[in-house]
Amino acid sequence: MPFQIPRGTQDVLPGETEKWQHVEQVVRSLCGRYGYEEIRTPIFEHTELFLRGVGDTTDIVQKEMYTFEDKGGRALTLRPEGTAPVARAFVEHKLYGSPNQPVKLYYTGPMFRYERPESGRFRQFVQFGVEVLGSSDPAVDAEVIALAMHIYNELGLQHIRLVINSLGDLDSRRAHREALVRHFESRIHELCEDCQARLQTNPLRILDCKKDRGHELMATAPSILDYLNDESRAYFEKVKHYLAVLDIPFVVDSRLVRGLDYYNHTTFEIMSDLEGFGAGATLCGGGRYNGLVQEIGGPETPGIGFALSIERLLAALEAEGGELPVRRGLDCYVVAVGEQAKTEAVRLVYELRRAGLRVDQDYLGRKMKAQLKAADRLGASFVVMIGDEELESGAATVKDMASGEQMKVPFGELAHVLAKRTGREE
Amino acid sequence: MPFQIPRGTQDVLPGETEKWQHVEQVVRSLCGRYGYEEIRTPIFEHTELFLRGVGDTTDIVQKEMYTFEDKGGRALTLRPEGTAPVARAFVEHKLYGSPNQPVKLYYTGPMFRYERPESGRFRQFVQFGVEVLGSSDPAVDAEVIALAMHIYNELGLQHIRLVINSLGDLDSRRAHREALVRHFESRIHELCEDCQARLQTNPLRILDCKKDRGHELMATAPSILDYLNDESRAYFEKVKHYLAVLDIPFVVDSRLVRGLDYYNHTTFEIMSDLEGFGAGATLCGGGRYNGLVQEIGGPETPGIGFALSIERLLAALEAEGGELPVRRGLDCYVVAVGEQAKTEAVRLVYELRRAGLRVDQDYLGRKMKAQLKAADRLGASFVVMIGDEELESGAATVKDMASGEQMKVPFGELAHVLAKRTGREE
Repeated sequence: MPFQIPRGTQDVLPGETEKWQHVEQVVRSLCGRYGYEEIRTPIFEHTELFLRGVGDTTDIVQKEMYTFEDKGGRALTLRPEGTAPVARAFVEHKLYGSPNQPVKLYYTGPMFRYERPESGRFRQFVQFGVEVLGSSDPAVDAEVIALAMHIYNELGLQHIRLVINSLGDLDSRRAHREALVRHFESRIHELCEDCQARLQTNPLRILDCKKDRGHELMATAPSILDYLNDESRAYFEKVKHYLAVLDIPFVVDSRLVRGLDYYNHTTFEIMSDLEGFGAGATLCGGGRYNGLVQEIGGPETPGIGFALSIERLLAALEAEGGELPVRRGLDCYVVAVGEQAKTEAVRLVYELRRAGLRVDQDYLGRKMKAQLKAADRLGASFVVMIGDEELESGAATVKDMASGEQMKVPFGELAHVLAKRTGREE
Repeated sequence: MPFQIPRGTQDVLPGETEKWQHVEQVVRSLCGRYGYEEIRTPIFEHTELFLRGVGDTTDIVQKEMYTFEDKGGRALTLRPEGTAPVARAFVEHKLYGSPNQPVKLYYTGPMFRYERPESGRFRQFVQFGVEVLGSSDPAVDAEVIALAMHIYNELGLQHIRLVINSLGDLDSRRAHREALVRHFESRIHELCEDCQARLQTNPLRILDCKKDRGHELMATAPSILDYLNDESRAYFEKVKHYLAVLDIPFVVDSRLVRGLDYYNHTTFEIMSDLEGFGAGATLCGGGRYNGLVQEIGGPETPGIGFALSIERLLAALEAEGGELPVRRGLDCYVVAVGEQAKTEAVRLVYELRRAGLRVDQDYLGRKMKAQLKAADRLGASFVVMIGDEELESGAATVKDMASGEQMKVPFGELAHVLAKRTGREE
């Protein structure tokens, strides 16, 4: 037990890590194209940040946080999400004073939630997310959504669906909230305990309840879209207009809500549409949060962002049978027979690596035949053989593993010849 | 206070993250050339792993670990180093049974030690490291050292020095240990309390003591190199032979020791030699640990590895005045004047991004002049301008910011023309 991995976490091993690297590279490249720059915040923050920034009535804060005291008695929490830390950094480093506005940031890294481990859910999982701080232009909402969709497209995910909604501004939300209380009040005892508690603290979250999803009161609940004031309605129309201009298909679902008070206007989710994967499984969620920065002590600053789980992205890709273009093979494996050949192999392998090639050799004192097998298993494109004869003649035997062709190449020319043949020329 | 970053940790902001990305990319590319594959282990492990795998007499375990209980009452620790987790994963996933031996792994990620924060020391810091498990070929020792040196070379670090030593095998260490006890025993009261405690538990670590560094007993202490048995001496000679073959300069320092029982044979450090940076500051440390895998419940498996801090690497680079080849600028900024032009800008920016270009636009409703300033600040190579005239003619005004040259380009050809001019053609 003590020497096993902690429950709910996983190791990513060679063969899998290449996929992660590929996803991260695509994400980084697309963020660059969209003008987003990376930010890295610590793995833990003061607990108070999440109480305020995520909200102390949420499941995350109430049930799922990894909170502990450090040796100095400070309450710290392993970050359960990335938005509050980014907002904290935005305020602390006064990025609102930067000449480049809005501030467009992205992050990737592990997040932590103490949930019951089940298939596809981990206690440590990796999120990629973006935050745009400092603009309330509906074109930014469209840009953020376009970036999320672009990432899935670029990685080859086919069966996805974009769902959007608007929560309106504070006034719209307040009017809707009152309507919700009126709607549920008289029959609230028919719903679960959590919902009963939510009626006063956060009635919007009743619509999110997994237990009472099928209750008839849910279907007839007042829609936020009927309570948007003129300004909020115009804002939402603009977002939809820009999405149409970008030719990004979407559906509006008025039940797509976020429980926190500082969420407003646009919310969106990208879901998997693949039968069997769990159609409707959320891959990515995001929205506007014009109140968050102020909530944690900064100046009033509009914000919008999204987060997606890399584990789920990879699972969805696998469920669709999508292949990521990753490769593991070596360019060259150097086979050596005899003590002197071994020394020459050590030198040559190093020379080839310095020339940019992916090269390896035997470190188990294996015989020639076993070394050739190792070369094959490691997917080497070329095998270079060195024995007494080669040492004497000053030329190695080189075998092209694809064609089977063999040739003699002087030691001094190997780096050049192999770099050329494998396309790894510097 | 609650909304400040936790003490001893840091945010990495845009402008700095690009350097981290560059270092990670170089590291990944070089690891590929050397045949190392990435492994990712969780941020925390069962505390017991580090008690056994790092050693319960070490400062790390005794003073510096972030240990906490999860909601299930398990003792977990934020990893203070990467070797024990990799060895744990090696055993748990039975990688010793893989046909490809030795298993060559690398990792990068945050580590955690509760130390007094001082310049250049963080409580959360990022380590890159490698581990080779399954071979006791001295050529592996040379390879591992060569990789570490190659990384610093590739990143342009000039003033570094490689120091190596051998601790020999268990027999050699035992003989040396007895000699150390005899040497210090009669005058141990002249040394600090820690050293007095170490005399019986771990006398080798007396040589490591920072307080007693200058004591005359240190200079005259018996050298491990005089206690190497024939086999250990031959092993060390082989390692030095291969380093000479690779033309990698080194110095031998018999005071370079590791306190843990399962360390043996080769140890090495790479130090900064730069005046002012703290000459002699360790950038990278590594060595053989042939007993670790067995210690944590796996089969007897030789191992060797190193770890280096990315923070210190970047600090050393900066101290030397080295510049990393990172770039932040946009390829293109689209300036729009008027509502209809804005819609066209939203569409065009998206089209250019899909064509592979790094593009942005205004999201603050700024006037043309302010938009042009923004383009300049964001380092745009080209500015595309759209106003009423351009909408009417169907061609945008394009300005090459380097030459000042202006031209008209039909909207439909912009992606092609700009991709070509910026060299980002797909």
